[in-house]
Amino acid sequence: MKKEVETFYYLLHPRPVALICSVDEKERPNVMACSWITPVSEEPPMVSISLWKEGYTCQLIRRTREFTVNIPSAKLVKEVWIAGSKSGRKVDKFKLTGLKAVPAKKVKPPIIEQCIGHLECKLTNSVEAGECIIFIGEVLTAYAKEELLTKEMWNEKAEVLLHLGGRQFTTPRASFKV
Amino acid sequence: MKKEVETFYYLLHPRPVALICSVDEKERPNVMACSWITPVSEEPPMVSISLWKEGYTCQLIRRTREFTVNIPSAKLVKEVWIAGSKSGRKVDKFKLTGLKAVPAKKVKPPIIEQCIGHLECKLTNSVEAGECIIFIGEVLTAYAKEELLTKEMWNEKAEVLLHLGGRQFTTPRASFKV
Repeated sequence: MKKEVETFYYLLHPRPVALICSVDEKERPNVMACSWITPVSEEPPMVSISLWKEGYTCQLIRRTREFTVNIPSAKLVKEVWIAGSKSGRKVDKFKLTGLKAVPAKKVKPPIIEQCIGHLECKLTNSVEAGECIIFIGEVLTAYAKEELLTKEMWNEKAEVLLHLGGRQFTTPRASFKV
Repeated sequence: MKKEVETFYYLLHPRPVALICSVDEKERPNVMACSWITPVSEEPPMVSISLWKEGYTCQLIRRTREFTVNIPSAKLVKEVWIAGSKSGRKVDKFKLTGLKAVPAKKVKPPIIEQCIGHLECKLTNSVEAGECIIFIGEVLTAYAKEELLTKEMWNEKAEVLLHLGGRQFTTPRASFKV
């Protein structure tokens, strides 16, 4: 039997978690966890992220129009949970988690040293969608730990963190070819 | 060392694959594979899918403004590959794959009988993003095979299909709690 679900979006999980860095006008950085992120165009390279309208990251990206996407491995699951459940308006989440902000190459928001992959993005458009705003950004550069990639795809050693919902996470099995 | 990558979006994979059904004005259905899909709002429930501008599904959704999202298990990987690599302008992909179109509850596009979860969506907005169009849809109803859900999240038995890139796919390991 097929059952109607209350939480429709769990049906579209598990999905790779990202840590989003942004800055305020004084270049003070903030970090937050997001799994509602997807590539949207290959050429030019673009991504979209959907963020709660009232959140601090939403406010910062609207103002300073840049962000970085940082891919954590499963080792960082506790840090990810804190980044996703506390507000940067109230606490410095870098201090709280021990995540280390280091300079990006092309944008003002930092990247996170402990992460295994990074995308540096410039906002090109935004659209309201219910209680969230979809930010669409061009990817200016993307890089990752070479030993964790096989033909540019994450290999098993990467242990990319996938969010199932709530406090539940998982990682991918070995890949197979169709 | 961190290496600059050519295929930026692989860094945001693996992600759950969906089969998107749409119809033309005569209600003839088409199916296509998509992994650039994400929830974008919880209340109201909304999703976005990013589709190549020149593709047939893109043309159909622009015209008839409805679509269904069907979640396959890993057992359907061959059918998914065909749905994602052939154009519905040239072939009937239901015939070609053996995927069975059955009526949805609230929209004209069908759902796929062999899939384990379904979202029925009505287009509310669309935005260009490079070579693609992001379609934003309200989820009118969402349902799934009850025995494959635990607290509404896919359990291990579901074997959700995750796309790594190219012909490479994977499935999730058992979940853990942070």
